[in-house]
Amino acid sequence: MGWLADESGLGKTRANYAPLTPLSHLRRASDVFAHRTALVWKSTRLTYADYAARVSQLAHALTQSGIQPGDVVATLLPNIPAQVEAHFGVPAAGAVLNAINTRLEADTVAYIFGHAGAKLLLCDTAFLPLAEAAIAQMTTPAPQIIEVVDHGFTASNRYTTYESFISTGDPQHPWIMPEDEWESLAINYTSGTTGRPKGVVYHHRGAYLATTGNALAWRMQLFPTYLTIVPLFHCNAWCHPWMIPMLGGTIVCCRDITARAIYDAIADEGVTHFGGAPIVLNTVINCAPTDRRAFSHTVEVFTAGAPPPAATLAAFEPLGFNVTQVYGLTETYGPATECLWQTEWNTATGDDRAALKARTGVTMAMLEGAEVHDTHGNPVPRDAAHLGEIAMRGNMVMKGYYKNPEATAEAFKGGWFRSGDIAFQHPDGYLKITDRAKDIIISGGENVSSVEVEGALMHHPAVSLCAVVAKPDAKWGEVPCAFVELKPGAQTTEAELIAHCRARLAGFKTPKHVVFAELPKTSTGKIQKFELRAVAKLMDA
Amino acid sequence: MGWLADESGLGKTRANYAPLTPLSHLRRASDVFAHRTALVWKSTRLTYADYAARVSQLAHALTQSGIQPGDVVATLLPNIPAQVEAHFGVPAAGAVLNAINTRLEADTVAYIFGHAGAKLLLCDTAFLPLAEAAIAQMTTPAPQIIEVVDHGFTASNRYTTYESFISTGDPQHPWIMPEDEWESLAINYTSGTTGRPKGVVYHHRGAYLATTGNALAWRMQLFPTYLTIVPLFHCNAWCHPWMIPMLGGTIVCCRDITARAIYDAIADEGVTHFGGAPIVLNTVINCAPTDRRAFSHTVEVFTAGAPPPAATLAAFEPLGFNVTQVYGLTETYGPATECLWQTEWNTATGDDRAALKARTGVTMAMLEGAEVHDTHGNPVPRDAAHLGEIAMRGNMVMKGYYKNPEATAEAFKGGWFRSGDIAFQHPDGYLKITDRAKDIIISGGENVSSVEVEGALMHHPAVSLCAVVAKPDAKWGEVPCAFVELKPGAQTTEAELIAHCRARLAGFKTPKHVVFAELPKTSTGKIQKFELRAVAKLMDA
Ligand SMILES: Nc1ncnc2c1ncn2[C@@H]1O[C@H](COP(=O)(O)OP(=O)(O)OP(=O)(O)O)[C@@H](O)[C@H]1O
Ligand SMILES: Nc1ncnc2c1ncn2[C@@H]1O[C@H](COP(=O)(O)OP(=O)(O)OP(=O)(O)O)[C@@H](O)[C@H]1O
Ligand SMILES: [Mg+2]
Ligand SMILES: [Mg+2]
Repeated sequence: MGWLADESGLGKTRANYAPLTPLSHLRRASDVFAHRTALVWKSTRLTYADYAARVSQLAHALTQSGIQPGDVVATLLPNIPAQVEAHFGVPAAGAVLNAINTRLEADTVAYIFGHAGAKLLLCDTAFLPLAEAAIAQMTTPAPQIIEVVDHGFTASNRYTTYESFISTGDPQHPWIMPEDEWESLAINYTSGTTGRPKGVVYHHRGAYLATTGNALAWRMQLFPTYLTIVPLFHCNAWCHPWMIPMLGGTIVCCRDITARAIYDAIADEGVTHFGGAPIVLNTVINCAPTDRRAFSHTVEVFTAGAPPPAATLAAFEPLGFNVTQVYGLTETYGPATECLWQTEWNTATGDDRAALKARTGVTMAMLEGAEVHDTHGNPVPRDAAHLGEIAMRGNMVMKGYYKNPEATAEAFKGGWFRSGDIAFQHPDGYLKITDRAKDIIISGGENVSSVEVEGALMHHPAVSLCAVVAKPDAKWGEVPCAFVELKPGAQTTEAELIAHCRARLAGFKTPKHVVFAELPKTSTGKIQKFELRAVAKLMDA
Repeated sequence: MGWLADESGLGKTRANYAPLTPLSHLRRASDVFAHRTALVWKSTRLTYADYAARVSQLAHALTQSGIQPGDVVATLLPNIPAQVEAHFGVPAAGAVLNAINTRLEADTVAYIFGHAGAKLLLCDTAFLPLAEAAIAQMTTPAPQIIEVVDHGFTASNRYTTYESFISTGDPQHPWIMPEDEWESLAINYTSGTTGRPKGVVYHHRGAYLATTGNALAWRMQLFPTYLTIVPLFHCNAWCHPWMIPMLGGTIVCCRDITARAIYDAIADEGVTHFGGAPIVLNTVINCAPTDRRAFSHTVEVFTAGAPPPAATLAAFEPLGFNVTQVYGLTETYGPATECLWQTEWNTATGDDRAALKARTGVTMAMLEGAEVHDTHGNPVPRDAAHLGEIAMRGNMVMKGYYKNPEATAEAFKGGWFRSGDIAFQHPDGYLKITDRAKDIIISGGENVSSVEVEGALMHHPAVSLCAVVAKPDAKWGEVPCAFVELKPGAQTTEAELIAHCRARLAGFKTPKHVVFAELPKTSTGKIQKFELRAVAKLMDA
């Protein structure tokens, strides 16, 4: 290919080649932005010089405690400084970060400890009972616990505290930089929406490139002030802790996601950007008037997990926010597509504007491609009608699933990462998710989008939350079966809801059964349809 | 290092690995920004869809005309669309772009044709005589000429025109993407300020990373409108043609750099960014009042080659511009450091502000490091006093010099690229260039910065331009020798200038000789001190 006739002397050397790693961003920031504020949490205010020094201390302390390059270091931490520091301190010891969802049950935490083989755990005081319960269930070696005592907490005195642990480290300790950018940086377990969480492995190269892709998508210039709403245990908060040092920005921590905390951070710290699920937008909308604070700038809010509903946008944006939807998976380092706002859309208002903002979006800058493929792996026509599976490829796709080469090979079949999400493509190329592949219902040979049926149900005034899944059926193969939570005090019947849907949907899309029940959810609030499917299967026809 | 206990199934596949290449930016832009304006030149207005189609046509036409991957395709073009298109079309054929300085003399062009081994040349009608004269001097095979006929020019009828050449190509022709990101993308010959130009080879990886580094340094968000003032044959205009598609921006071409053209582009096309040598700033300052146009935004101007003088800044910025200095070499894909403006500097005014803007800057985001090294390769103290050589390392450092492994090895000695530029470092890490290593004068064991002596001379009202070089001296080893161009009509004497300097400088820094003569310059206007040194050496003591 593009090799010159004579390539002698043109190879890689230390002068012209450095493995890509997010560690480089903090190393540069500790010099170029030495005196700027890097991290803010209550009375804690770290400059980049402080931050980098503490990262060195953490890396050194880890090494001194026996952590070797390639070992796994886990965390059970909210979005507090220790969690942010671990994102650099753990790789600076050559180790691999496993930030675990603090909302998981002990059983799943035990599974993750064992599967990832964590040697050491940084654990918030509040989550010690969870960690201990998980360790009690383990039959393989358990991780050593270092207790992180946050502002307002009292140490349990059962473990070495984080501050005394890192105080043994040298603030000048040199970092272990990767020799190969493909080395592992982090393992993140998926949400478990569709089954047992899978251990997604990230490399240094992908995280580095994700930082630049995200900075571009977020239209960030120098010195953003970023509020940590997305949990750092969720795709490493979309790689943002690794990105902010590249821009000399400030990370404002947030332990509990309340409207008050968000408003205070905006008004007192000048927060310019944050990300969060659509539910966070609702939290802000429903804020008590006394908790609201005035601010004069527009805050950029990125939301993922689901399209922002029109009503939410209409109530939220006038409060001083601009919402952009992004879409991605744990497998893609977080966001992989962005609903990139085109200039000619500026004139759109109301529902038109909401419909544009509800699009799943286009390929982000550092990804090679995001397309909708038919079952043969060919792109579907761009007609806003043909459905297919979202397929992605490029440097922001994971290394693979840890200890699961079969699942990895399956996910990468055909040279694309197959997301399991069903979508169509607008004529201009914008993707629009309709459903997860596993959630689609095939009734009498027709595809039924569970999301569409749920949308119809949600229009009923009594319905608070619902999920529609496939129920096996002797005649139709599958039929839609709805599970519904009612609003407090509201009443309705199965027959009324079925009639309500039938008035809006084709017969084959109308649920044949409605069950009133509390819906099983993941710790991130996603409904676990695989459990509902199991229930539906067991139900009498 | 950071390898997990079990890395099975975690290797590179087509799904999760793509060689980094700027071609990806245009491929994405042709889809995401299909209908946005990509290129503007007089009556030419190309959307991204058009632009990508023409790039495909060019790539296909090149292949059909016998260009193989790895072959060199040269250009002798001003900043017009064909030159921009070649930046993608040539690599899309797997070939290597050699954009040649159109201001060079035929002798040097012949040298470059032969050294790079160009197979084909895209040549503007105006530079056909130059190309033909160069080819006439060649003893090795000459490149085939394709004539680019710009608006307002008439085809010579001696060669296939660019438009008819690319019309044979298929607008859907698939691009040859690199299989290895280390493949060669471009060869750029250095300015020849210190001797024969050297062929600097770029790879796809470096150019890709340079695009993101530059976008961050230029604080670019989506949709910039970029004016091509820096010649594309000069480090590929600092990689900007490869960057703009990443941002969906518009490139406004500019054939002749006049104040009128700059003002028109700002007022009519809404130009937001351009780069250029400090001389361009003076062109705008000295603009005829009738050529000035009103505009309401602030235009970001990046300048390199020399620090922007205080007087220039004072006159230029109030006209609606914000100036940022960058520093780099052909060897570093253009800019490698930026005079990153710190928030706390906002209060600085006048000379203080100018002094800050005159700093050479700090490491740009995608470079691993830029430091000042002593002769042992150790960083000098950060005391704004100790001098050393600027050393850089990282992914934005060239592959090496073409067909010159010795020079490459010499340049990369010690694992850093040695720039040949002399600087000190401020306590906050900002670099400040004082001189080129080759230009420093060592008199009686003391280092004399030629730049400092020149600065003193420039204060004399009769001096228009000057250069100070070392002259061998039996007693002192070397002594400063000044070459001076006087302002039209001005008069002075050698003795007067020596006395003028002595009043401002230490004795060992004061020139011992002053020669009145026109100074030899490179085609980019840099003074060729190596020629003056030769003259000084031959002079009687
Ligand atoms: N903007 C969005 N619109 C709609 N769905 C989204 C959006 N962003 C993310 N998602 C959904 O979230 C999924 C990714 O979530 P995540 O990786 O956290 O785990 P999960 O897929 O829910 O869990 P598991 O893989 O264990 O079943 C996507 O596959 C998609 O279904
Ligand atoms: N901001 C700046 N301030 C001072 N000098 C600069 C600046 N930017 C660039 N330069 C000078 O320009 C040089 C790079 O120029 P370039 O690569 O075009 O060729 P050259 O070094 O002039 O030519 P050759 O290498 O053939 O002698 C740097 O080494 C430096 O001396
Ligand atoms: Mg998933
Ligand atoms: Mg040079």
